Amino acid sequence: MSSPFHPPRRVLMGPGPSDVSPRVLEALARPTIGHLDPEFVALMDEIKGLLQYAFQTENPMTMPVSAPGSAGMECCFVNLVEPGDTVVVCQNGVFGGRMKENVIRAGAKPVMVEDPWGRAVDPDKLRDTLKRHPEASLVAFVHAETSTGAQSDAATLCAIAREFDCLTLVDAVTSLGGTPVRVDAWGVDAIYSGTQKCLSCPPGLSPVSFSERALERIRDRGHPVQSWFLDLNLVMSYWGEGTQRAYHHTAPVNALYGLHEGLTMLREEGLENAWARHRRHHQALKAGLEAMGLEFVVPEAERLPQLNAVRIPEGVEDASVRRRLLDAYGLEIGAGLGALAGKVWRIGLMGYACNRRNVTYCLSALESVLGEAGAAIERGVALEAAQRAYDRM
Amino acid sequence: MSSPFHPPRRVLMGPGPSDVSPRVLEALARPTIGHLDPEFVALMDEIKGLLQYAFQTENPMTMPVSAPGSAGMECCFVNLVEPGDTVVVCQNGVFGGRMKENVIRAGAKPVMVEDPWGRAVDPDKLRDTLKRHPEASLVAFVHAETSTGAQSDAATLCAIAREFDCLTLVDAVTSLGGTPVRVDAWGVDAIYSGTQKCLSCPPGLSPVSFSERALERIRDRGHPVQSWFLDLNLVMSYWGEGTQRAYHHTAPVNALYGLHEGLTMLREEGLENAWARHRRHHQALKAGLEAMGLEFVVPEAERLPQLNAVRIPEGVEDASVRRRLLDAYGLEIGAGLGALAGKVWRIGLMGYACNRRNVTYCLSALESVLGEAGAAIERGVALEAAQRAYDRM
Repeated sequence: MSSPFHPPRRVLMGPGPSDVSPRVLEALARPTIGHLDPEFVALMDEIKGLLQYAFQTENPMTMPVSAPGSAGMECCFVNLVEPGDTVVVCQNGVFGGRMKENVIRAGAKPVMVEDPWGRAVDPDKLRDTLKRHPEASLVAFVHAETSTGAQSDAATLCAIAREFDCLTLVDAVTSLGGTPVRVDAWGVDAIYSGTQKCLSCPPGLSPVSFSERALERIRDRGHPVQSWFLDLNLVMSYWGEGTQRAYHHTAPVNALYGLHEGLTMLREEGLENAWARHRRHHQALKAGLEAMGLEFVVPEAERLPQLNAVRIPEGVEDASVRRRLLDAYGLEIGAGLGALAGKVWRIGLMGYACNRRNVTYCLSALESVLGEAGAAIERGVALEAAQRAYDRM
Repeated sequence: MSSPFHPPRRVLMGPGPSDVSPRVLEALARPTIGHLDPEFVALMDEIKGLLQYAFQTENPMTMPVSAPGSAGMECCFVNLVEPGDTVVVCQNGVFGGRMKENVIRAGAKPVMVEDPWGRAVDPDKLRDTLKRHPEASLVAFVHAETSTGAQSDAATLCAIAREFDCLTLVDAVTSLGGTPVRVDAWGVDAIYSGTQKCLSCPPGLSPVSFSERALERIRDRGHPVQSWFLDLNLVMSYWGEGTQRAYHHTAPVNALYGLHEGLTMLREEGLENAWARHRRHHQALKAGLEAMGLEFVVPEAERLPQLNAVRIPEGVEDASVRRRLLDAYGLEIGAGLGALAGKVWRIGLMGYACNRRNVTYCLSALESVLGEAGAAIERGVALEAAQRAYDRM
């Protein structure tokens, strides 16, 4: 027999899920209504409008996929890629590799642009690759690499792709709401994100947006989209315009209550203010981490404020430090992923979790646990450095 | 600017979502923890055990797909079907047609066994088809057709499939928790369900289970699974055995809190008691509906207790009656789907929504609204009939 589950209280400062706003949690628990109820259809319209604001786009085809970010990624690929296509994929971390897998499974040929993990995508390499592959029809890259904390110059990469008449497909899972994402200004054709990062919601939904050029390509496909669940032609009969919505799948009603609340909070704060908040607390966290002698993986100019990857000090054991932080402090920070497993920690400052209380708590806990683990850290310097950073701002 | 959304109070007696238990709603709002947190991994193990109970199986590969029922269907097909395969699909409603779409999109050839909408699948037709198609490797059918309320004899259909050395793939979206589903006893190889029907949870997750024979076929595939998100080889690195779980996608943490609570309630009540409850309230609802002169679509022996499809009386307008029920009574009943659109209503009695209060309320509201709409209904007969039915039980 199982009994009701009461989760421990955590402070979530990993790569996501990050702390969920109490307003969002409360919204999740509101009574379920039907997925075709007129009141729910009105809510869907509000969610679309709020997502257009978050993505800075007027794309009518803007909505949440009813599944986590990896399904959002797959939704973009299976709709835009046909068997035999050539797709240029820029890889500078784990998620570029996942994009490659998606291209292969859609029957297309990936051409890789490789950059070191922890660096931004190099625009010159993309241009050179596109010169050598005039047959390419799509360029895919990760705006904010969750595995390293590197941010790429999406505006420049999109402009280069357009020069070569390629559509663009962008991963904004970790960036949306935390750092500027400007779908229309950059000319992005397909973009996906997740709810569990800077949108302050639990995991489970993947906001996406598609440009008119992307929709044209989807309408002109020679092969049916290989996924029935993710086929935008069908999904839009439910998420489309007007009051008549055709049943496609049953939408995750309560998760959408939560997303609506998280997006409403973002709208109240204002995107620019949210971006500034992420920069501000990142500056303080960075000052503290560096005062402890921790080194960032990503060069300063290419760094995401909301995901701080630092090298694990020599002689310090990864798993036992994270476990101690979790057990003694209820604090979750992220392990390294892929090639960086065991070598780095990823400290998130995302959405509702991005605040001074968390910065202070994380620095205090890390200082104590690293001290225990034998690292030579002078007590109090991290907090002092963070406080000086706040005072300067 | 949008403001927080406060849903109206509804009584959900359509084809799902059905009323969600307050215990489940409350569980959804508990604080989010990490998807690799040891406490969460322990919760995942409990969910697997509870799902094994609900499905009556010992299959280790039993877990919820992180997306609604249609994704669960797709998960079963893309893992078990390879390009060039022949798949026998039994269709007696909307969802058999969706299965056919899945087969085609996986590059395989569907061979259809057609039965009238509103009837069970005819085992003799399946046997005849399998005789004519010895190349078939899989038989897919819907146990509980949500579009009509017909229940097929899954044990017999699975036995026939085995005679012809075919695996079986079963839709139990509407049956699980409401009427017997016995995966091991029937020899089902792949099965999917949804959370928003008889499990008393919101929509968004799809419990699935796979037999050892199904896993063998997946391991022996010649082609990669076309979906990265739904590839069981990868999903099981997260949902598998042991305490070490590899990141695949980020699980929908709070939705899983809700599912755990809904399954715990089912375990507390006991499956047999839940099945008996669905039969009991169905008997009363049926007595009331028939006393009003409404006719069932499905012959009695093939009827699902939890989904009651009745013909719309001559001269009564479908949409305005449903709208009036919703606006004046907050009561949602379901419209017809596909070939039955505009011809039937689907009245659900699922999970937490399956209780005497709802039966009584639905009959009262329907009697009043049908009276308004000009149907010749003697006042009070429906409630009397329902009460007599309860008294006899």
